[in-house]
Parts: sequence; structure tokens; C-alpha cells
Amino acid sequence: MQRDKLEIHFATSNMNKFLEAQLVLAEYRIKLAFLGRRALEIQSDSIEEIAKHSAKSSSSQANIATVVEDAGLFVDALNGFPGPYSSFVFKKLGCDGVLKLLSGCPDREAKFVSVVAFCEPSGEPVCFSGTVEGVIATEARGTGGFGFDPIFIVEGEKQRTFGEMSTAEKGRYSHRARAFREFGRWFVESIKP
Amino acid sequence: MQRDKLEIHFATSNMNKFLEAQLVLAEYRIKLAFLGRRALEIQSDSIEEIAKHSAKSSSSQANIATVVEDAGLFVDALNGFPGPYSSFVFKKLGCDGVLKLLSGCPDREAKFVSVVAFCEPSGEPVCFSGTVEGVIATEARGTGGFGFDPIFIVEGEKQRTFGEMSTAEKGRYSHRARAFREFGRWFVESIKP
Repeated sequence: MQRDKLEIHFATSNMNKFLEAQLVLAEYRIKLAFLGRRALEIQSDSIEEIAKHSAKSSSSQANIATVVEDAGLFVDALNGFPGPYSSFVFKKLGCDGVLKLLSGCPDREAKFVSVVAFCEPSGEPVCFSGTVEGVIATEARGTGGFGFDPIFIVEGEKQRTFGEMSTAEKGRYSHRARAFREFGRWFVESIKP
Repeated sequence: MQRDKLEIHFATSNMNKFLEAQLVLAEYRIKLAFLGRRALEIQSDSIEEIAKHSAKSSSSQANIATVVEDAGLFVDALNGFPGPYSSFVFKKLGCDGVLKLLSGCPDREAKFVSVVAFCEPSGEPVCFSGTVEGVIATEARGTGGFGFDPIFIVEGEKQRTFGEMSTAEKGRYSHRARAFREFGRWFVESIKP
């Protein structure tokens, strides 16, 4: 299949993720379609492994070129917890759980990491990642964003959490946007005649 | 295939789990073989779903009748955390993490749950579960067992954690042994002429 004729499907059940990715890839004139089906996720300590496996199984099942995205919050003092299981941990413990685990801990460094994996049917998955460094606040603040946004202060910011920023402002730092930009650049390069 | 001629393989990378299961199934004259390959685990909030998927994929890949086992610690006051991700959470936070999350919390109720899934090639998986109820101690005690054993006090015990019991003593309560016994009973029943 010619890559410049390729329609890429994003396998996700999260419409917000899809809209963010679509906006970023439009910068590269890449058309993204919504494959409203969450890719099967395996258990692994590595979000890259999880994304690769999901992309491969989604693209071979649907027989179309597919991207998937996996992301997590990695807290240094917690050995990278909650990492690949961030959404499960958020659902069970919320921001308060992470704050409690860090109470009395001076090391607050953390990062959000996103991995985008692209796979064509019968091909091997290719990965792209985006990271945003920061620290965990001492209390949850703000109602913007989702998940652990109210306790994450991006590097360079003094006080405000992601939860206190507008979507557009947060988007300038987004680990997900960074990973999709990496993919976009690679993809455009790969279809050059 | 005749079930009474069936050799059942246990897909696990954990030799201790295998030996415990083998001992239990010997009570039912069921011969268990070691398939030294960990079944692929999916992400799910339900250990039953995880075990079912693993049993189905292991048995179809290896083309043999397979059992797998998945287990977790479910803490009531933490909405069932760490549940299906108990081994990941133990690796990252240890017993201290769970104690910290529960500090100041009067509700200490918890349970260990084990699910055994059995599947024949091209068949559908069948599940059996075993549970042991108890409470989370206020401090870790004992060096026996593994994982969260040093903070788990089984119902009926006043003080001693699983970590302070001998293997044989702990084995009398084992959620894993209970699940394998359920399977053993069902299997013996299912091969009756």
C-alpha cells in the first residue's frame, strides 16, 4: 500500500485523546480516522511494550494501518509508580492516594510519558515518545484536565498545576502532543518520494 | 480428546505456585505438568477476565489443555486496590506503601483472591476461585511467604500475619489452594463415565 494514500486509524475509546491527536497530525497533513475500539492492552512495566502490542494486534485484526497511544505518570520517589497503571490507580486512589504516598517526602520529581505506536497490517510496530517533566504538588489544585493533572506542576511553572491551566495552555506542554509530533515528522519523512 | 487421558499444563513462570498447585491436584489424582512460560496477561480490573484470556491464549498457542492462575490482594478501604496489579504495586511500593495508604484508616478489611482458569484448545475457559478474608496489620511482621504476606492477618487469627506462619500453616488458608481444589473437584466430576 502506498503510504501517501494511507488513512491512519487511531484505536482508542477516548474521544478527547483522538481530538488532540487529530489536531496535532493536521499540522503534518495527516488524516486521522477514529477507530472507536480500545486496543487490547497487555500487562507490562513498559508503556512502550504495551503500545507496541496494542498497535500490532489492532492493525492485524482490523487489517488497516493503526496508531495507539499509551501514557502514564512516573513518580521518581515511588520507583515510577503508578506508571503503566495510572488510570487504574487514579480510579482506585485518586490524586489523594499519590499525595498520601508522598507525604513527608522531599523528592517530588515526576514525569508524564506518552508513547505512540504505529503499525501497518503484517508490519512491525514503530514507537514515538513524548515526555513532560515536573513535580508533584503538595495538594490538588484546579479542575481542568483529567486524571493526575491537579497535582502535576510542569517544569518552569512555579505554582500552577495542569489542573489550573486552560486546555490550550496545557496543550503546549502535552506529552501526548509531543509523541504525536514525533510520529508526524517520521511519517511525512517516510512517504517522501 | 478423552479427559481421563489428559495431561494438564500449568502456564506460569513461578515454580512456587506450580509446586503448590501440583500438591493440591495430587489429592484428586490429577497430574500437572510445568509449562514454564508465563501466559500473556491483559489489563483488566477483573482477575477472572485476566485468567480467562491467559488460559485461552496459552491453550490455543501450545495446543494443549492449560491452567493459569491469577491472584491479588483487595483492600476494602482502597476500593479493591491493588487488586489485579498486586505484584506490580508490591514491586514499586512494597508493604510500606499499602500501610501508608491506610494510615489513620480504621477499616482494615482485605482479602486475597485467586482465580484458576482451565482451557482446552479451541474450548472456552472455565474459572474457579478461592478467597481468604482478613485484615491489614498496622505494621509488617514476619519473613515467611512473599508479597503482601507480612501485612495480612487471616480471619480468626488475632495477631500473626501470613509472614509469621510456616508454609504448611499458611497453606491451610491459601486462596490459591482453595481455587485449585474447586478446579480439582470439577475436573474429577467432569471425567466420570
